[in-house]
Amino acid sequence: MTQETLSKVIWGGIALLFGAATIFADRLGLAEKRWMVVAASMLVLAYAGWQTRALLSLDAGTERMHELAQYIREGAQTFLRREYQVLAIFAGVIALLLAVAIEPRPWVAVGYLLGTGVSALASWIGMSVAVRSNTRTANAARNSWAEALGVAFASGTIMGFAIVGLGMLTLTLMTMIFTDAYVWLGFVFGATSVALFLRVGGGIFTKSADVGADLVGKVEIGIPEDDPRNPAVIADNVGDNVGDIAGMGSDLYESYVSALVAAMVLGLSTYAALGETGAIVPLLLGAVGLISSLIGALFVSAPKGDETSFEEQVQKVHQTMNRGVYISNAVFLVAAYLLLANFLEQDVIAVFLCVLSGLATGFIIGPITEYYTSEHKPVIGMAESAQSGPAILIIDGLAVGKMSTVIPIFVIAVATVVAFKFAGLFGIAIASVGMMANLGMLLSMDCYGPITDNAAGIAEMAELDLVVRERCEMLDTVGNSTAALAKGFAIASAALAALAWLATYFDTANIAVASITDPQVIAGLFIGAMMVYLFSALTMKGVGEGAFATVEEVRRQFREIPGLLAGTAIPDYARCVDIATIHALHSMLLPGILTILIPLAVGLLLNPEAVAGLLAGSLLVGLPLAIMMANSGGAWDNAKKYIEAGNFGGKGSDAHKASVVGDTVGDPLKDTVGPSLDILIKLVGKMAVIFAPIFTWIVWNI
Amino acid sequence: MTQETLSKVIWGGIALLFGAATIFADRLGLAEKRWMVVAASMLVLAYAGWQTRALLSLDAGTERMHELAQYIREGAQTFLRREYQVLAIFAGVIALLLAVAIEPRPWVAVGYLLGTGVSALASWIGMSVAVRSNTRTANAARNSWAEALGVAFASGTIMGFAIVGLGMLTLTLMTMIFTDAYVWLGFVFGATSVALFLRVGGGIFTKSADVGADLVGKVEIGIPEDDPRNPAVIADNVGDNVGDIAGMGSDLYESYVSALVAAMVLGLSTYAALGETGAIVPLLLGAVGLISSLIGALFVSAPKGDETSFEEQVQKVHQTMNRGVYISNAVFLVAAYLLLANFLEQDVIAVFLCVLSGLATGFIIGPITEYYTSEHKPVIGMAESAQSGPAILIIDGLAVGKMSTVIPIFVIAVATVVAFKFAGLFGIAIASVGMMANLGMLLSMDCYGPITDNAAGIAEMAELDLVVRERCEMLDTVGNSTAALAKGFAIASAALAALAWLATYFDTANIAVASITDPQVIAGLFIGAMMVYLFSALTMKGVGEGAFATVEEVRRQFREIPGLLAGTAIPDYARCVDIATIHALHSMLLPGILTILIPLAVGLLLNPEAVAGLLAGSLLVGLPLAIMMANSGGAWDNAKKYIEAGNFGGKGSDAHKASVVGDTVGDPLKDTVGPSLDILIKLVGKMAVIFAPIFTWIVWNI
Repeated sequence: MTQETLSKVIWGGIALLFGAATIFADRLGLAEKRWMVVAASMLVLAYAGWQTRALLSLDAGTERMHELAQYIREGAQTFLRREYQVLAIFAGVIALLLAVAIEPRPWVAVGYLLGTGVSALASWIGMSVAVRSNTRTANAARNSWAEALGVAFASGTIMGFAIVGLGMLTLTLMTMIFTDAYVWLGFVFGATSVALFLRVGGGIFTKSADVGADLVGKVEIGIPEDDPRNPAVIADNVGDNVGDIAGMGSDLYESYVSALVAAMVLGLSTYAALGETGAIVPLLLGAVGLISSLIGALFVSAPKGDETSFEEQVQKVHQTMNRGVYISNAVFLVAAYLLLANFLEQDVIAVFLCVLSGLATGFIIGPITEYYTSEHKPVIGMAESAQSGPAILIIDGLAVGKMSTVIPIFVIAVATVVAFKFAGLFGIAIASVGMMANLGMLLSMDCYGPITDNAAGIAEMAELDLVVRERCEMLDTVGNSTAALAKGFAIASAALAALAWLATYFDTANIAVASITDPQVIAGLFIGAMMVYLFSALTMKGVGEGAFATVEEVRRQFREIPGLLAGTAIPDYARCVDIATIHALHSMLLPGILTILIPLAVGLLLNPEAVAGLLAGSLLVGLPLAIMMANSGGAWDNAKKYIEAGNFGGKGSDAHKASVVGDTVGDPLKDTVGPSLDILIKLVGKMAVIFAPIFTWIVWNI
Repeated sequence: MTQETLSKVIWGGIALLFGAATIFADRLGLAEKRWMVVAASMLVLAYAGWQTRALLSLDAGTERMHELAQYIREGAQTFLRREYQVLAIFAGVIALLLAVAIEPRPWVAVGYLLGTGVSALASWIGMSVAVRSNTRTANAARNSWAEALGVAFASGTIMGFAIVGLGMLTLTLMTMIFTDAYVWLGFVFGATSVALFLRVGGGIFTKSADVGADLVGKVEIGIPEDDPRNPAVIADNVGDNVGDIAGMGSDLYESYVSALVAAMVLGLSTYAALGETGAIVPLLLGAVGLISSLIGALFVSAPKGDETSFEEQVQKVHQTMNRGVYISNAVFLVAAYLLLANFLEQDVIAVFLCVLSGLATGFIIGPITEYYTSEHKPVIGMAESAQSGPAILIIDGLAVGKMSTVIPIFVIAVATVVAFKFAGLFGIAIASVGMMANLGMLLSMDCYGPITDNAAGIAEMAELDLVVRERCEMLDTVGNSTAALAKGFAIASAALAALAWLATYFDTANIAVASITDPQVIAGLFIGAMMVYLFSALTMKGVGEGAFATVEEVRRQFREIPGLLAGTAIPDYARCVDIATIHALHSMLLPGILTILIPLAVGLLLNPEAVAGLLAGSLLVGLPLAIMMANSGGAWDNAKKYIEAGNFGGKGSDAHKASVVGDTVGDPLKDTVGPSLDILIKLVGKMAVIFAPIFTWIVWNI
């Protein structure tokens, strides 16, 4: 037994013990049950810490690699620092308003600040790990691809478990201190604020830098991608971390805690007779999920053996990742059933079916996303139509994106009906918890993507051996798939979380009926639809302006810094990072503030039912649009890669040129607009719930 | 007083008499009131006939013009014949099903066949006039632009008044024979079937031909647009008639009769105490609208005087058109108020405000559409970004399209709330009537567009003098604006008509509440959203395949017909028309049938409330998507024109090449997908109302 296997067996054994203890915690008192959740959180945090120690002990490669990694690290820190400065002001203002307006004053504000702080901290940790693991992954690839895979996935688990562990830990501790559910809502709203800044701001940042770098570098000057002479190249690499680590992480984290809190709030009212047990069950399901994620992650291992072909390697990496997902899902389902059977006196099967429907939704949407965005019939058809030029390719890509929304929306509709049938509004929230429970495992896989992407970039810029670069590229290919899966999962989870919060809103605003025969509800639905288009137009405009500013700056540097093109001078990387950051912050404020003010205005000017319409409208219109944007973008990206692999003329052909246009169009759609809509449909729900006491007060008093 | 002025005074005098008689018809019996509507319909039909006689007496130009016009005429006839053959089978099957399943059997089927027949006839008349007036307009332009304007607008009035006159006439006669409202619903459903075939099928046809012609002609062979050597050039010109005359006409006609019937049905139940008077008021409002449209049209006249600059000419044409619209609206509002004051004993102001809110909605959406799609800040900004290549232009165009949805949706939401507040569900239907009342005038303006477009094409192909071609081009420029306005109006009217039918569905299915707290309603909403994306993906795919087939055929002809490129042989125009027709028919059947079956399935498998959700979901998701597609497409088109006018490098520059890509992407969006969504959101409402008795029967009996 190798040392690695031994340590896995030990971790696995401890995890099983903790899991069993959690399942049979029904014999304990309420406080002890909560301590079980705290213990499970500590366990995965300990695992993340143990992995971090191992990671930092690894060699970070050549001096040039060090240097490049440092630029990226500094850029990422600059971005986060700036974001957090503005976020601090934003959060301060919101906290003040909450402290004045929402009962129980001022504790909701405290919950809000806590939620903001923890989410910001988790994202900061994730980002710090990512910018340290990219160069270590590239360096490990100098030995073998299996070793590099090990490093990249281990780094992924650090981020994944740090994020979910921290979230669960603070949430549980908070419920022990504050028993008023409104404080918990404040906590979630804090996570939403961070997600708004990192996902929307990050999305605008990453594409401003990417498109700006490409337009001058590739198109005007004619230097390759990831060329260190391009002043925006570091900003582009920073963008990968900003968008896919901090942005995606904070987004999924938000879905995670908001699913848990929605289920806790609805659990309290659904199982009023059980007292606080209704609120503890979702937390315990979450704890079981932490443990099953950990067990799944232990089964992901770098395959031993000789070097094989590119395709075989890709397949093996996929296999081991899938093994991890399957095992964690299976373990979770068994454990969740036992837990429910022990804790609930009735409805065991019903609630379990809700958990299952949520898990299945996430599970089904993955392959659908994969089918429409990877090398299958739609993408190959798009690559073929690229031969007729960019226009036909873009039309085709829009059609594929639209088609790709059909099954996911249908699946979500079915899951909603099933969950509601079995356990009412609480069932919808529980489905959302079931979907998110294994987030630890999924985040590990997801964070693996940008790490390998960055590693490939560093290998390229540091001019490592061809075989090393090929290994990084292979790992990155898998990373693109996992990233696409994560995007699909993020959207689906946003939809279920939004539904759960719609349910919570009905509960907190005491709405039994919001009928589409009521013109106020219809007006709300329309305004929700309008918000989606307004929000996505504004974020797209933000990317356009940010890219334009980046282009100006890159042009200026090539004009004013002597020897830049010759490679004898170093560009001012930091300035490009700065410019993209400032633009991202500017562009996200207006849509962010509108998303907060419009539900408030609708609640004040119309009525609480109109706000329910607004939530439903924004979900209904935003969901397919987000899926379409993400999948069209992914499909264009992969159509380009398919052509670059030598099909339909390969690199340099007319089809390839057309596919570059498609890819550029898709970039902001899939990395800015689509993900931003996730935030929108979740944010309005939180706003509505937070403001619900004000709306109902008005109805009763005016 | 010239002969022209004299005849206008006579027509105006007669119209005023008829109008006054209609307003004061409250003293008459029910049958006589209906005869007043018949008389108003006959009046505008007589005007159309009188204009037709004048048109046919005009000279159709040179032999070459004759020949080209004949090709177009034959192509258009081929298309219509084929469409009508399949439509006949389709309508036969539907009629059979209706005769078996829906009470009062078999009269609903008779109403359906009548509706189908009248709408098909109206479109056939419109098309026949259009293919005869194009060459006469071009010929008149050889004398002066004012004369050409006169011919084109007079032809527009023939189509406009033939369509509304026929619709109102048959509808009224039918209500005299059949008093069961379900027969009227059958009549409307017939109009919807025709609109489905002509608008969706026509939309696919026109863009298959257009894109196919351009891809081989302009891109591969390098011959100019509208070059008679291109085998697909006639199909392209046929497409203008098919899409913008038959398609747009049948679409607006459908909104027109469906607004009227929805208001009649809801009027019957709202004013149950008044007996059939509730149903007669909407018809009388329609009659008053016919007359005010006629009066407005009389005020559109070719300005006398010397030739002025291009810009001044354009301005003058706009002015005279606007005068017609303003006058018809003003006359209608005064007449509508007097009518309501005479006929209703209460609610006069309330119902009038509903009429006003509908009229205002149509009126506000026009300038908004114009702002986002004509030479204003957004389009100029897009032209500027075309300098950075097609990708940025396309991103920018999508953002502009999204932004352009915000105000229209808001306006529709406000109109809904206002109309409902004042007169409940009936108010929404009346708002829809108010919006559509002046359709005669609007259709005249709208049909003017494709006629001048075709005239410009014929002038080009027949190689008329430069000054003649310039005059035609000037008229066509105005035509593009009126076409864009008509598109915005068509979408807005579809939205109000869909709302009116949602209201009718509540009424016929006896639904008092369809709450978004009910999972079945949520499932319905999601399925409605899904349908929109499915439908628009399928129609886009249809255009792609149709264009591909056209490309193959054009290539084959250039390969196999000797002397084609040299201009010594005549291409097989008819074959291209045939191919595009067959593809259009094939591609529209699946989306059409799905649109009929899905609401039925939802009603059978879920419940009537879920169907209400489906209607609301498809409207809510389809409306912004349709507006975005139409306006993005229009904006790309005009960004190209702005560059071609010499800005940002003008013709042949990189910006121009990028703008051609944008325009090609926009073509199917604005001419196929957007308009098809109009049909979808209206069709599902009709299906729901038709099937309502089955749904409710199931609820009560199973």
